[in-house]
Amino acid sequence: MSQLPNQPTEGPVPTSADVARLAGVSRATVSYVLNNNASVRISEPTRRRVREAATELGYVPHAAARSLRAGHTRMVLLPTMNFPAGPLHHRFFHQLESGLRRLDYTVVQYGSTGLDADDAPRAWAELRPVAVIAPGTIALTPQGISVLRRSGAKAVITLGPRPVDGAHALVMDQREVGSCATGHLLERGRRRIGVVMPEESGLGLFAEPRLAGARQAALSHGARIEPLPLRYEEESAARLAARWRTMGLDAVFAYNDEYAMLLMRALQDAGIEVPRETAVVGADDLMLGRLLRPRLSSVRMELATPQPLADLVDRLVQHPGGAPECHDLLRARAVHRESS
Amino acid sequence: MSQLPNQPTEGPVPTSADVARLAGVSRATVSYVLNNNASVRISEPTRRRVREAATELGYVPHAAARSLRAGHTRMVLLPTMNFPAGPLHHRFFHQLESGLRRLDYTVVQYGSTGLDADDAPRAWAELRPVAVIAPGTIALTPQGISVLRRSGAKAVITLGPRPVDGAHALVMDQREVGSCATGHLLERGRRRIGVVMPEESGLGLFAEPRLAGARQAALSHGARIEPLPLRYEEESAARLAARWRTMGLDAVFAYNDEYAMLLMRALQDAGIEVPRETAVVGADDLMLGRLLRPRLSSVRMELATPQPLADLVDRLVQHPGGAPECHDLLRARAVHRESS
Repeated sequence: MSQLPNQPTEGPVPTSADVARLAGVSRATVSYVLNNNASVRISEPTRRRVREAATELGYVPHAAARSLRAGHTRMVLLPTMNFPAGPLHHRFFHQLESGLRRLDYTVVQYGSTGLDADDAPRAWAELRPVAVIAPGTIALTPQGISVLRRSGAKAVITLGPRPVDGAHALVMDQREVGSCATGHLLERGRRRIGVVMPEESGLGLFAEPRLAGARQAALSHGARIEPLPLRYEEESAARLAARWRTMGLDAVFAYNDEYAMLLMRALQDAGIEVPRETAVVGADDLMLGRLLRPRLSSVRMELATPQPLADLVDRLVQHPGGAPECHDLLRARAVHRESS
Repeated sequence: MSQLPNQPTEGPVPTSADVARLAGVSRATVSYVLNNNASVRISEPTRRRVREAATELGYVPHAAARSLRAGHTRMVLLPTMNFPAGPLHHRFFHQLESGLRRLDYTVVQYGSTGLDADDAPRAWAELRPVAVIAPGTIALTPQGISVLRRSGAKAVITLGPRPVDGAHALVMDQREVGSCATGHLLERGRRRIGVVMPEESGLGLFAEPRLAGARQAALSHGARIEPLPLRYEEESAARLAARWRTMGLDAVFAYNDEYAMLLMRALQDAGIEVPRETAVVGADDLMLGRLLRPRLSSVRMELATPQPLADLVDRLVQHPGGAPECHDLLRARAVHRESS
């Protein structure tokens, strides 16, 4: 610990009163300086003295105490997801967080593991967030939204495949992905299209609207859509491949690239030629799909840029009480390679 | 909104005083009932009346106010990671969170995007957590640890490839992964081993100790270790494959399965036979690696079960002031398939 000549001993937690005493100023001045309150004129030497005293004592402001004094927090609650998010979502959240921080919000993530749709909003409300961005994996009810509102949340915003009554919605409409993949297969002349439905729990939220989008796109062409349950396991894919020819399909939209890689390998092992006999298209446009032979066709997704979203959250907080707004974030386009 | 006959209008946030008035009890009674304080005897009808009044008013306790009264929080801060975590880490964090919640802690995640090693602990300290589990992606300094301690954190715990002076450490020792992969290649008779070093930022934290582990394992066999910088792009892999034969390597540990898949495809496209000419081993034991031909050999990692870890966090909070503890979480073993 030689780097730390003034290593503090364990002792009472320093307060703003301690800082005020050491700097020879009032507690109000300490508060103004450390919270960067620009509306009060305080000389630069005084500001410096307060900051130095805070550093020497190891004092940092208490977010909860500050928010109690202010009557509200600047906390935006972003409940954590129950499944690993891909790089697309990860980057999106990361940038949204940065954007909100630039607007002086504190972004806090809070899990909902083991909490149901009633308990979760109550647990979130205890933190008194000024805004909640709830992912679609929690089925927010009007009651839950009301609990959050009454606890002081100015904006309750859902982020998921579809809007929820009474809340603002950032929609990542998964139907778009299904209709995009199916449209591509229809263009390639396919008319009997399987749609992989992952059996892993939690994915139905994405898979069901993708299937609905596929059905919608197939309608005008009189094409057939066949849902195909599949587990993310080699055995499950081998079983599906073994009965492939009995189903008379000429194409498959495989939910995403990982399921597509799994199924394409099983089809090839069963002697089914891709794309001649069956065209395969995934989604996510992973780099790994390009390493396959044939190279995997996919659907590339893009999300709206997050800074306007951070501004949107800020606007909804500043002007609560308006009608629920719905914003569409997702753009999808087919990427044609060799498997379709 | 027909599901909600008593949809509240926007109005002042209900307080415990409102609940007390409606239920005809004291504020203390409201607090005892809603915080499940079992040490005070309150009749079941009274408890029910309080709960019904709280529900009717949409009142939930204020975590910050409660923690201010109690003088400490039950908040465990788990800073979010700057990169997408794989399923192994995701499951681990998820279970650790559940374990801590069972012990009545509130687990809150807080990002550190754009904050440096000095700012981040100060931002965390503002939330007054009772414990912080900081991931290795933030280089906690003794000063940072001191700021957290002085703000009231009873336990500061780092979670990463190596311990940090003055904090408890949960170590996921990545050297183990490198030595395990290299040990496997040595066993298969290989002596000139390339080690892929991803050029993507943030991965050095894992790649460097993996390389060190490989060097360590190679030492006793007099084997050669050659670091191989690689970007996660087909062009980068093709360039490496094009000069492969000039390097005289007979094996490669490719950092993880994704880089292994990328490199193996490039080697095969360059006419290099795997495993005859060059053995390839990845890490993570992804299902996708089993779909390749030859099937990819890998290193499977396992993490300690999280419930004892939640208990450990609780013990460190209850008994602060002890010497820093270091616990090793990672177990690795080679999985031999066809590529090595």
